[in-house]
Amino acid sequence: MATITVPRVVPSPAEDAAALLKAFQGWGTDEQAVISILAHRDATQRKQIALEYEHKYSESLIQRLHSELSGDFERAVYHWMLDPAERQAVMANAATECIQEEYPVLVEIACANNSAAELVAVKKAYHALYKRSLEEDVAAPRLTCMHPWIVVQLLLAVVSTYRYDGDDNVDMELARSEAKIVHEAVRNGGGGAAGGHDELIRVVGTRSKAQLRATFACFKDEHRSSVTKALPRGDDPTGYPRALRTAARCVADPSKYFAKVLRHATRESAGTDEDSLTRVVVVHAEKDDMGAICAAFQKRASCTLEQAIAKETSGDYRSFLLALLGS
Amino acid sequence: MATITVPRVVPSPAEDAAALLKAFQGWGTDEQAVISILAHRDATQRKQIALEYEHKYSESLIQRLHSELSGDFERAVYHWMLDPAERQAVMANAATECIQEEYPVLVEIACANNSAAELVAVKKAYHALYKRSLEEDVAAPRLTCMHPWIVVQLLLAVVSTYRYDGDDNVDMELARSEAKIVHEAVRNGGGGAAGGHDELIRVVGTRSKAQLRATFACFKDEHRSSVTKALPRGDDPTGYPRALRTAARCVADPSKYFAKVLRHATRESAGTDEDSLTRVVVVHAEKDDMGAICAAFQKRASCTLEQAIAKETSGDYRSFLLALLGS
Repeated sequence: MATITVPRVVPSPAEDAAALLKAFQGWGTDEQAVISILAHRDATQRKQIALEYEHKYSESLIQRLHSELSGDFERAVYHWMLDPAERQAVMANAATECIQEEYPVLVEIACANNSAAELVAVKKAYHALYKRSLEEDVAAPRLTCMHPWIVVQLLLAVVSTYRYDGDDNVDMELARSEAKIVHEAVRNGGGGAAGGHDELIRVVGTRSKAQLRATFACFKDEHRSSVTKALPRGDDPTGYPRALRTAARCVADPSKYFAKVLRHATRESAGTDEDSLTRVVVVHAEKDDMGAICAAFQKRASCTLEQAIAKETSGDYRSFLLALLGS
Repeated sequence: MATITVPRVVPSPAEDAAALLKAFQGWGTDEQAVISILAHRDATQRKQIALEYEHKYSESLIQRLHSELSGDFERAVYHWMLDPAERQAVMANAATECIQEEYPVLVEIACANNSAAELVAVKKAYHALYKRSLEEDVAAPRLTCMHPWIVVQLLLAVVSTYRYDGDDNVDMELARSEAKIVHEAVRNGGGGAAGGHDELIRVVGTRSKAQLRATFACFKDEHRSSVTKALPRGDDPTGYPRALRTAARCVADPSKYFAKVLRHATRESAGTDEDSLTRVVVVHAEKDDMGAICAAFQKRASCTLEQAIAKETSGDYRSFLLALLGS
C-alpha cells in the first residue's frame, strides 16, 4: 500500500502551477504551500504540473524549486519531482561516484525496487541522461574512491541481469545444490575466485528472486543460520561481505530490509542519515510496499516510522516526509 | 535493405491459411505453394496467417508445417515462422546447450543483431518460453559440453549489458586508454584475470559499440594490426580467443562478419554448414542489413550469395532460401 494521499478533488495542473508560483513570490517562500501541493500529487500529476508550469511561466519548475528551497528539504523535493525511473537513474549515477560507500543504492535498484522491466526503464533513463550505460559506469567507476574488483563484479552482475520475475519455476534440487555453493563461499570468507565467490556471484547475479529465496531457505535448513548472519562481519577493507549481505537482504525480504535502513537512518545514537531516509521514503511513498515497510519498522522499533521521523528531523523537511507518509 | 519481397496485393490471412491447408492436403505436400506464400509475407503477416489458420482449422500451423516438411527446409521454415524476438530466444536457448561450439549464436544476438531494446525483447521472449533468464542459462550452461569459465564470463558480459546505443558520446581519450587494456590482454594471450582479461571483458562487455569501434581504431593505429588479427589463432582448448574475435567482428562491422559466416557456410571444400546458412538468412532477410551482407559477400567471394546457395544447396531448402533473398 502506498502512503501518499491525493485529495478526492484534485485542482487542475494549471491551478497547481499558479499556486506554486504564488508560493515562490514575495518575501521568502511559502514552503507549506509547496508541500501541501506536491506531496499530495502522484507521479503523473506532478509531471503535468511541471509541464504546465514550464509552459506558462517559461522556467523549469525543478530549477525554481532548487533556488527557492534548501538543504535536505530541497534534495527530497528534487528527487520527488523526478519520474520514478529517472529518479533512480540519478541516484544510481551518484552512487557510481563512490560505490564502496554507496553500494546499497545500486543493490536496492537492482534487487529490491524494480521488476526486470522497471529496471530496464531505469537503465533507459540512465542512457538518456548520461549518454552512457549504467553497466559501464558501475564496471569502471570514477576514481574518487577505492573500488575493489570483487565488489564491482558483484554490483555489475546484479545491475546487468534481466532477471526472471516469475515464482512459478522454482527448482528445489537446484536450490539445494546452489545452497552448497553459497555455503562454500561464505565459509571461505573474503572474496576471490579461489573462495568460490565467482560461483556465488553467478548465483546471486542471475537466478530469479524466487529461486534465490529457495536457495537461502535450503541454506538455513542445512546450517541453522541465515546467509546474512553467516557472512563475515567486521571491517573487511573491500566492503564485499557487506555488499553481498545487502543483496541477500534485498532479495530475501525487501520490506524488512528497508525497515532496517530506516531504523539505522533514524537512530538517535548515530545521528540522522538524511540521505538514506529521503531515499527510502521518496522512492517508496507511492509504491505498493511502503505500508509493509512501515509495519516492518514498527515491529522492530519501539515507535512508528512517523514518530521516529518527527523526533529525528525538523522543519519543512520533517513536514514533507510526514506528508509523504500520509500523516 | 531487406531482401524479402511481398506482393503488391497481399491475399487476406484467411485466403493464405486456406491456400496452405490445400498445399498440405492430398498425396504429398505442395512445398512450392508453401514457399510462394510464407517466403513472401512479412513477420506481422505471417503471424496473422498463423492465428487465422489455428482459429479456422483448430491446429497449430507451425506444428502442421513440422509434420508436412522435413530436413533443413523444415528447420528453416520453423525459424522463419517465429516472431523475430522469439526466434532468437529459441536459437539462444539451443546455443546454451553447448556454448563452446555455439557461442557465435549468442555473440550475434548480443552484439550484432539487436539494439539494446531489441535484446531486451529477446530476453523477455526467453522468460516467456523457458521460465528462466537467458543470463542464468548462459552462466550455468547445461553440462553436455565443456564450458571453460573464461568463455562463460565473456558471453555472460555481452548478453547481460543494456548497452548504450548512441554514437554521440565517443570519448577518444577513453578509447586510447582502453586500447592499451585490449593490447595488454591480447599480448598475454589465453585468458584469466592475470592476463588482464577481466578488464578486457569489462570493456567489450559494457562499452557502447561506437566507443568500442573507436577503441579498436586506436588499437590499429598504435599496433598496425586489427584486434581480430592480433588475437592468437590455433587450437586454444577454451575457445576463448575465438569467442572474443567473434565479438570484436560483430561490433566492428556486422555485415562483413555475417558475410564471412556465409562464405564459410557455403565453402565447397568443407561441406555446407546449413545451420549457419539458415540462421543468417532467416534472421536478416527482413532486416535492413541483408542487402549490405549480400554486397559484402560478393566483394570477397567470386560469386553472389544467391549463386553460392544455388550451388551448395538443393531442393525446397534452396528454393526457400533463394526466395528469402528476393530471387
